Amino acid sequence: MRYELYYWSTIQGRGEFVRLALEEAGADYVDVANLPARRGGGDAALLRRLGDKTLAHPPFAPPFLKAGRLFIGQTANILLFLGPRHGLVPAAEAARSWAHQLQLTIADLVQEIHDTHHPIAGSLYYKDQKKEARRRAADFVANRAPKYLGYFERVLARNPAGDRHLVGARLSYPDLSLFEIVAGLRYAFPRAMARLERRHKRIVALHDRVAARPRIAAYLASGRRLPFSEADIFRRYPELDEA
Amino acid sequence: MRYELYYWSTIQGRGEFVRLALEEAGADYVDVANLPARRGGGDAALLRRLGDKTLAHPPFAPPFLKAGRLFIGQTANILLFLGPRHGLVPAAEAARSWAHQLQLTIADLVQEIHDTHHPIAGSLYYKDQKKEARRRAADFVANRAPKYLGYFERVLARNPAGDRHLVGARLSYPDLSLFEIVAGLRYAFPRAMARLERRHKRIVALHDRVAARPRIAAYLASGRRLPFSEADIFRRYPELDEA
Repeated sequence: MRYELYYWSTIQGRGEFVRLALEEAGADYVDVANLPARRGGGDAALLRRLGDKTLAHPPFAPPFLKAGRLFIGQTANILLFLGPRHGLVPAAEAARSWAHQLQLTIADLVQEIHDTHHPIAGSLYYKDQKKEARRRAADFVANRAPKYLGYFERVLARNPAGDRHLVGARLSYPDLSLFEIVAGLRYAFPRAMARLERRHKRIVALHDRVAARPRIAAYLASGRRLPFSEADIFRRYPELDEA
Repeated sequence: MRYELYYWSTIQGRGEFVRLALEEAGADYVDVANLPARRGGGDAALLRRLGDKTLAHPPFAPPFLKAGRLFIGQTANILLFLGPRHGLVPAAEAARSWAHQLQLTIADLVQEIHDTHHPIAGSLYYKDQKKEARRRAADFVANRAPKYLGYFERVLARNPAGDRHLVGARLSYPDLSLFEIVAGLRYAFPRAMARLERRHKRIVALHDRVAARPRIAAYLASGRRLPFSEADIFRRYPELDEA
């Protein structure tokens, strides 16, 4: 079965957490919005699905995944579905619940990262909420980022199977997502991250191991890995990355 | 097995979505922080668990649920665990995934409701972000609340088993959570909701049916249902509820 991933064509965004899982799994998938329009792709194809009145289970927003006749929405829910099908989570129910709990905490962090540059409204431009963004980003860098990173560092330190993975003794999908968090924070907040990384060495080591995995390394070097940008969740605005 | 729910003693908050499921299920549970201290309760007992260094699976934040030896965190993840154990979700995997997807969309909405009064930082008082809150709440009332409510109204309308439930032909845990959303929005944004309810009659009817269920009605009339307040997620600040 070939999966169809529906996410915006030009950004990593929340879709990237799904792309990383599909790539690590070596899964057969098409990134619909990144197909040429003559092959049924483009953001227009995504928007058609999003507005499809015949769907009994309409998604609220991208990303969503078509798997056979199922349409599955919400990033963490897509990973909950893919994990056991592709060996990206242990078999035991307790471990799966724990992996999902971590993924939901990563989702909360992603929302807070997004809101550093959009604290007032997604419908407004950054320039129209720049003052508020400075206040929110200052709190993020001082309080929220250390709280989240401290948490994941602690989770690694306490893993009874060792500090190389978040869950059990092997790679699972939250590891892939934590890699993306580190890569994104390095892009968006290089000054703050240089400081934070010194206190979160297990997270940094996890990032490096994920980046070196053969399929992830191949993906990162490919054209499928879209660049970070200021139209995305992780944005490099130097005025938000002050000491 | 008696569940232990860990959530702040004085607010509904995110814990309420779990309390409603436990109450509807008639489950055996203790609301730890609402037990007297002499019986091992109080917010101090919650904080002890939250800081318990022996937990291999530490929660990031309340609510979390102790179920036997498991500690389960993240509201939607707790409901994912409880749903199948208490008949609060259909048996088919596709229906469970759909219910969870809806719950995660409700979680996103809850975060946006919270941020109407705290757009800058949870660590600051409302009075210190009042100006920003007015801007954010205006966007919430004009754009975000209609988008979310329109979505859930559409989900009800499209349910092949009828528009009385979000998932299938029977009550499931997202119905209970949507009840709480309506009750909370009525408390926090009475003017906006009076207007919005006219266009979302299926959601309002669902709210009324949930409120009339015997166990929920008994719970709402009991002392266990904490009152809404301005220390909670849904806050009534008239200046944020303008036309």
